[in-house]
Amino acid sequence: MNGAKSLLLTLLNAGVDTCFTNPGTSEMHFVAALDESGMRAVLTLFEGVATGAADGYARMANKPAATLLHLGCGLGNGLANLHNARKAKVPIVNIIGDHATYHTQYDAQLQSDIETVARNVSTFVYTSKSTAELSRDAAEAFKTASGPPGQVATLILPADVSWGENGKPITEIIIEAPKPSSKDRTKSIAKLLKNGKKTAILLGGRVLLKDGLILSGKIAKLTGAKLFAEVFPTRMQRGEGLPPVERIAYLAEMATVQLKGYDQLILIDAKAPVSFFAYPGKKSYLVPDSCKVSELCALHEDALASLQALVEELGAGDTVPDLQSGFRPVLPEGKLTAEKSCQIIGALLPENVIISDEGQTSGVKLPINTSGAPPHDLLTLTGGAIGQGLPVAVGAAVACPDRKVLALQGDGSAMYTIQSLWTMKRENLDVVVIIFNNRSYAILNIELQRVGADKIGNKAKAQMDLSNPPIDFSSLAKGMGVEAVKVDTCEGFHDALKKAFSTKGPFLIDAIVPPQFEGFKLKALPHVLGLMEFLPTPLAKALKKKLAP
Amino acid sequence: MNGAKSLLLTLLNAGVDTCFTNPGTSEMHFVAALDESGMRAVLTLFEGVATGAADGYARMANKPAATLLHLGCGLGNGLANLHNARKAKVPIVNIIGDHATYHTQYDAQLQSDIETVARNVSTFVYTSKSTAELSRDAAEAFKTASGPPGQVATLILPADVSWGENGKPITEIIIEAPKPSSKDRTKSIAKLLKNGKKTAILLGGRVLLKDGLILSGKIAKLTGAKLFAEVFPTRMQRGEGLPPVERIAYLAEMATVQLKGYDQLILIDAKAPVSFFAYPGKKSYLVPDSCKVSELCALHEDALASLQALVEELGAGDTVPDLQSGFRPVLPEGKLTAEKSCQIIGALLPENVIISDEGQTSGVKLPINTSGAPPHDLLTLTGGAIGQGLPVAVGAAVACPDRKVLALQGDGSAMYTIQSLWTMKRENLDVVVIIFNNRSYAILNIELQRVGADKIGNKAKAQMDLSNPPIDFSSLAKGMGVEAVKVDTCEGFHDALKKAFSTKGPFLIDAIVPPQFEGFKLKALPHVLGLMEFLPTPLAKALKKKLAP
Repeated sequence: MNGAKSLLLTLLNAGVDTCFTNPGTSEMHFVAALDESGMRAVLTLFEGVATGAADGYARMANKPAATLLHLGCGLGNGLANLHNARKAKVPIVNIIGDHATYHTQYDAQLQSDIETVARNVSTFVYTSKSTAELSRDAAEAFKTASGPPGQVATLILPADVSWGENGKPITEIIIEAPKPSSKDRTKSIAKLLKNGKKTAILLGGRVLLKDGLILSGKIAKLTGAKLFAEVFPTRMQRGEGLPPVERIAYLAEMATVQLKGYDQLILIDAKAPVSFFAYPGKKSYLVPDSCKVSELCALHEDALASLQALVEELGAGDTVPDLQSGFRPVLPEGKLTAEKSCQIIGALLPENVIISDEGQTSGVKLPINTSGAPPHDLLTLTGGAIGQGLPVAVGAAVACPDRKVLALQGDGSAMYTIQSLWTMKRENLDVVVIIFNNRSYAILNIELQRVGADKIGNKAKAQMDLSNPPIDFSSLAKGMGVEAVKVDTCEGFHDALKKAFSTKGPFLIDAIVPPQFEGFKLKALPHVLGLMEFLPTPLAKALKKKLAP
Repeated sequence: MNGAKSLLLTLLNAGVDTCFTNPGTSEMHFVAALDESGMRAVLTLFEGVATGAADGYARMANKPAATLLHLGCGLGNGLANLHNARKAKVPIVNIIGDHATYHTQYDAQLQSDIETVARNVSTFVYTSKSTAELSRDAAEAFKTASGPPGQVATLILPADVSWGENGKPITEIIIEAPKPSSKDRTKSIAKLLKNGKKTAILLGGRVLLKDGLILSGKIAKLTGAKLFAEVFPTRMQRGEGLPPVERIAYLAEMATVQLKGYDQLILIDAKAPVSFFAYPGKKSYLVPDSCKVSELCALHEDALASLQALVEELGAGDTVPDLQSGFRPVLPEGKLTAEKSCQIIGALLPENVIISDEGQTSGVKLPINTSGAPPHDLLTLTGGAIGQGLPVAVGAAVACPDRKVLALQGDGSAMYTIQSLWTMKRENLDVVVIIFNNRSYAILNIELQRVGADKIGNKAKAQMDLSNPPIDFSSLAKGMGVEAVKVDTCEGFHDALKKAFSTKGPFLIDAIVPPQFEGFKLKALPHVLGLMEFLPTPLAKALKKKLAP
């Protein structure tokens, strides 16, 4: 068999049965081989959709998908969402078609240095040298991708390696199970938790799912430690009946307040919080100087098993954790705002929904309004490269065909990978897309003040303004076959969302809302953002005092 | 002044007065400084639009534009069109915002290795180290970009270098004028042209504009040499009254026939033709083994001056070249096809239009149908990374506000950078967009046969099919504020195009056409493609014989 067939069979033997694609000529043998394989090939119209979808798929399926991309430029188009996947520690196996090995010397039009681009996001980068070795290379890529930690692996596939004969699929691919952290480490962390100091535990990665949350909740209950979640979780389960966890805030000003006063911080599959950007005169590292930071386990270790061992070491196995009680926001009325949208979402959210949240400033009130909703999964923008939310929703819906996906998107962010809508329709994915259409890059209005560049004129303001022309997302959706409605009242939004939740298939709601922080002053930020609702009362008071206008 | 202001002033002093942007937080000081500068900042909704627009701008303005992009992921999104610019030898100065220098150690969410990504497309890659040196760095970037040859230069701008004080703009930036090739070289090429052997001259880069064409036409007339143009010219002037030049065909099978029988090939600002992709059992290098290849000048030399010197050496100064006579295709009727679209374009094309051609298979009959039209500029897909045509049209329209731009786009290609439409409306650019909507990646149906992977099933076929769901480009255009119409008859297309040519501002025509090569057989390719119309009779006969079904 040819290389392409042996590659497909090897991937399938490894359990990689879904491939998000945007192929060109150099990938044609791979494409031709699809029919004789059990691989599901999901076509996208832009590579950033393919890579983001592979990310969303892996978050939910707990195994890698493959991507099929066309040379260095195809990889380039997919780079931003691979960056997000890298930061999320999500496994992806990229198959990047390349010119035939003997063709590269001629520097044809599409010739570029693919490996260099791939290194930006991939731990594993390898150009397969021969058809006979291709399957072995693919198995290595899969193993590296699988982790832990999950990684982006990039296998570059020259056309002649793909079309060459003598391909031999690998049938058995064994991945060694990760081990928990050492007993010594477990004991030393348990000791910290019993030393009476004020302790925070920061949860991330794989311990933000139900099992990890319950174990963490037991520890918190027994020891009095406070549970935090990393600022942008890869996947977090939350809602009624699960232990509540306070997420570190995006804004460093607020995160600093959240972490104030802790003597020690224990990291579980998370890294110590740092500021998203640097700001003149402000600290980048957000852990207080006097706070001691410890890690329960290393990245390559089994975080959940380590947590289980810690619970046993502490004797917390029978402790009953605090659980979130159920509540629904009251339904608002009148002209729609971002905050009211979040209230309505919280009021209507069905059980078991997967939320892909790239709502940006408009979504800032989502956590508080959904914290008492039925249990759901939350997927967030892990690497800061916007244009991730819609593709991640595509991937999550492919991975979980029986679950409803809710994609919350800022209007500016949505436009980077708007082609996602086409794939949603093509695959009839069960995704409700809400565009918070505030006609601005609203977050930049805040950031402009935060970096101290606040004396701005019209040319600068225009760089954040998306109102000229306004984008009509219902037209865009219809152009790609997706049913859509535009709303600007609470009643309209409520009815549209209710309908969307009760029917199958893709549906887009173009929610016209004012910018969340129009005319706000930086000093009033925490109040505007409503952080108080998250914070324990003493901290909220301290914050108010510190940052009052 | 701060770094951002000194950078803007330095760029303006160098003549770089236009910047295509998609900024984020780390670029906010640059944005804030815009108002106090004469820089025109053209906002795009996706970085691939910004980089492609910078390419189109430079092709027409003959000087670089700047881009303003957000860290490594923003650069990644712009990479494909920077690749096209690199292959086109077009000057671009990228300004890539980065984290503050002291912030990178914390590996925050958007941290990535920007230099590595930039190297894929840039000769000049430098991270500015201090505010005091920033202007010097920018001047170096500009000089490298300017060439010849034109290059992509990437200056990485850490946020603290941008916001730091002590910036000193550079007022005088002197670029050394390139020299023509040596007298010896000129004489040796002149000698070749007089040796009586069968000679082809391949024109590329800067000699495909009127001056270069006239000079080349004189040489061809005097010596009997045949003029070819490179397969994908950066910018080519053509039409009535200009010397006609035969473009090398995209398909290697045809290019081989075009070049058959020549004893010598003289390259002028062009490289020897190679196959776009490799194909099993076919040659990549398309120049016949027995043909001797010579270059008139090196890349860093002045190609036009070298050509002028060659004309003088040959004594061809007073030779009158053959010029293209004017003609217009007859207007077709009935159901619209890609070929008929090209006929109607040829019949209606006004003088001085700039055509950005990414029509792919649908545009294959464009050259023959516009060869006798009034003089116009043609910009093509230089690096093979699709999604270039609409952004290039944006940039060309910004550079030449008094000229009409005609963007011809395949439907599949259009979707990579469809966000271009929004910038067209926002800047009220005078661009007519024609989408050849054949609802397929039609070229891949050909390529699938060419690579020998022609036994295909439904899953493979689906990878080339864009009919499910069909894309309604008039909805997409309206969603971004651009007036649009959908047509499927010759009459409808004619009326829409006539209207579009006679009014100002962006206008999109969604031209529903069948795939150009539906059900074709590879062996009949040259006939289907109508190459015969380009070729001299003896070659056409040879080709027919060689490739007849």
